[in-house]
Amino acid sequence: MVPLIEYEQASDEVRVVYDDIMATRGTDWINNFWKVLANDPATLKRTWEQVKAVMAPGALDPLTKEMIYVAVSATNNCEYCIRSHTAGARAKGMTEAQLAELLAVVGLANQTNRLANGYQVPVDDSFR
Amino acid sequence: MVPLIEYEQASDEVRVVYDDIMATRGTDWINNFWKVLANDPATLKRTWEQVKAVMAPGALDPLTKEMIYVAVSATNNCEYCIRSHTAGARAKGMTEAQLAELLAVVGLANQTNRLANGYQVPVDDSFR
Amino acid sequence: MVPLIEYEQASDEVRVVYDDIMATRGTDWINNFWKVLANDPATLKRTWEQVKAVMAPGALDPLTKEMIYVAVSATNNCEYCIRSHTAGARAKGMTEAQLAELLAVVGLANQTNRLANGYQVPVDDSFR
Amino acid sequence: MVPLIEYEQASDEVRVVYDDIMATRGTDWINNFWKVLANDPATLKRTWEQVKAVMAPGALDPLTKEMIYVAVSATNNCEYCIRSHTAGARAKGMTEAQLAELLAVVGLANQTNRLANGYQVPVDDSFR
Amino acid sequence: MVPLIEYEQASDEVRVVYDDIMATRGTDWINNFWKVLANDPATLKRTWEQVKAVMAPGALDPLTKEMIYVAVSATNNCEYCIRSHTAGARAKGMTEAQLAELLAVVGLANQTNRLANGYQVPVDDSFR
Amino acid sequence: MVPLIEYEQASDEVRVVYDDIMATRGTDWINNFWKVLANDPATLKRTWEQVKAVMAPGALDPLTKEMIYVAVSATNNCEYCIRSHTAGARAKGMTEAQLAELLAVVGLANQTNRLANGYQVPVDDSFR
Repeated sequence: MVPLIEYEQASDEVRVVYDDIMATRGTDWINNFWKVLANDPATLKRTWEQVKAVMAPGALDPLTKEMIYVAVSATNNCEYCIRSHTAGARAKGMTEAQLAELLAVVGLANQTNRLANGYQVPVDDSFR
Repeated sequence: MVPLIEYEQASDEVRVVYDDIMATRGTDWINNFWKVLANDPATLKRTWEQVKAVMAPGALDPLTKEMIYVAVSATNNCEYCIRSHTAGARAKGMTEAQLAELLAVVGLANQTNRLANGYQVPVDDSFR
Repeated sequence: MVPLIEYEQASDEVRVVYDDIMATRGTDWINNFWKVLANDPATLKRTWEQVKAVMAPGALDPLTKEMIYVAVSATNNCEYCIRSHTAGARAKGMTEAQLAELLAVVGLANQTNRLANGYQVPVDDSFR
Repeated sequence: MVPLIEYEQASDEVRVVYDDIMATRGTDWINNFWKVLANDPATLKRTWEQVKAVMAPGALDPLTKEMIYVAVSATNNCEYCIRSHTAGARAKGMTEAQLAELLAVVGLANQTNRLANGYQVPVDDSFR
Repeated sequence: MVPLIEYEQASDEVRVVYDDIMATRGTDWINNFWKVLANDPATLKRTWEQVKAVMAPGALDPLTKEMIYVAVSATNNCEYCIRSHTAGARAKGMTEAQLAELLAVVGLANQTNRLANGYQVPVDDSFR
Repeated sequence: MVPLIEYEQASDEVRVVYDDIMATRGTDWINNFWKVLANDPATLKRTWEQVKAVMAPGALDPLTKEMIYVAVSATNNCEYCIRSHTAGARAKGMTEAQLAELLAVVGLANQTNRLANGYQVPVDDSFR
């Protein structure tokens, strides 16, 4: 669709973001998602700053955040995001047993969401 | 769509499930989701046994599982499930700060899922 | 969003479609979906002709088609479509036991879809 | 993501499920979905027992159930599930004409779901 | 779920964002979406800055951007977003004829997306 | 899933549609979507007539319509549709800057849709 922008070809504006990605993550490479967004430096910068802020440790720890990311991506069936964030969660310590339980919850929630929809279950007053 | 089956009207088969739901959760009431499923006792029993097994403490703690449930339900826009599982997560100790971060990750993942789709970003070899 | 166009106010172009809907269905009223589409007579006509052709008896009987419609609508969580097509399926003879099994399959498929996504299960050669 | 567990390497716990899948289906092989789930024997067993119960003949015949499965999977765009359940439906007798009508209904329902959403069509009293 | 934060009760940090929203839009009120996000000032600020940047005139005009927003929201069935962005598009000049064509395209795309999925149409080389 | 029907093998009924597609688009080839639908000539004809009517110039110009198509397809993650309609939009003059802004809006809308869902933001009276 659009070319991958490698570090060597990148403008200074893009390199600043690439450098921050690598420094923040403690890695020495850039994955394709960012190389694609680099075709539009404004989107690259805006998206990275958002990822950096939202995924940082806070009230939730980074592993929980990665697992939530995987849950959303599996629900939406985004192959790139499933693979990259599953890798990210494993890098943060997710075990195979945790992955299995995560996906079991994702499957269950997708099932009961449709039972609630299909039967048009009225919301209990105590949940409002 | 279908009537709510109250405990008083329920068959013995349904009451056994209702009793187990209340005992497992330490509550004295049944929410509408189960009262609707009770129109089909086989689905009621099968769904409850699954929820009981999947949502039990394991490699992931119950609060993390509830938050993953909320993440899926917000992605699918199931009002019943969003409200009931947000209530469930709060009952398990989720703070307002954790809810805010949870939904921020859900929003971000839904955004980047579509950037990855729209640009058809090729999966990096290291993620396979 | 837009007004409901009642038969009395409708243009001749719209009335022709309304008359055909009622004649085809053997009813004497028009449901809101069509009254809304009537704000754009071209969309009304195009959509009705498509519904008339696709939902007619063919290799699949009309009840099976209605149940497939419900399955899609429950998956997408379209309240209007869930309620109208569940009513339509009941009018064509769907029993409560059939509705329960239909929604059980819908729930199961939504669950296993996400297990297949989340684990990125490779397609077996024999399914290609 | 995770390895495929072949029969030869499988634990006794997994083999019991594999044997039941083959006996129930009258086949002599296991498809990849189960070989992946076998990494978590509890999920394998729970999911298979659910599929076995929900997809069995009942108020709806097995072919209708397979077609509903395809309808959900096409709506969610799950390649694995589309291919495996289309194969399953053909094995149960689905003709090419039935497949064409099934997908025509799926396409139509996805279209009208969005027209109903986009126009926020109010639900008719008679559908409540 | 969470309270609406009115201007009068808002912290200085929130008021700065509210003031910028009103100044940018030339209005004297804040809609509920922002009053809800204000429970988490960091999300409020981050989301507003993103909306301000992305929805500004650029290579695409603001009305086209609003219509794309409606298209996504109708596909996802987000009532709040459908209603607020349809109002936004009308405020920017969208006619009823344009709304009808917009939703006709949305419906068509949702239909053909599922025909392409269901048939697993192979991508033409010339589209790669 | 089903064979591609090439012009040479096509029935007269299918050729009439193929000829109209090529004449309308000013091209000398047929893309795979139509070659697949041609397995069911009624669906081929009905779908093409609808595309021809809906995508024609009207209150919205053809490029805007193509971009809306891309927005829906990226939201639903339909690879075939993303690639074919992005190519279609470029053929109608979409610049790389416009594509970047289109996808930025798509990403943003998918994000805020889930924030509105997750927080169950009440619709403002002025939007009804």
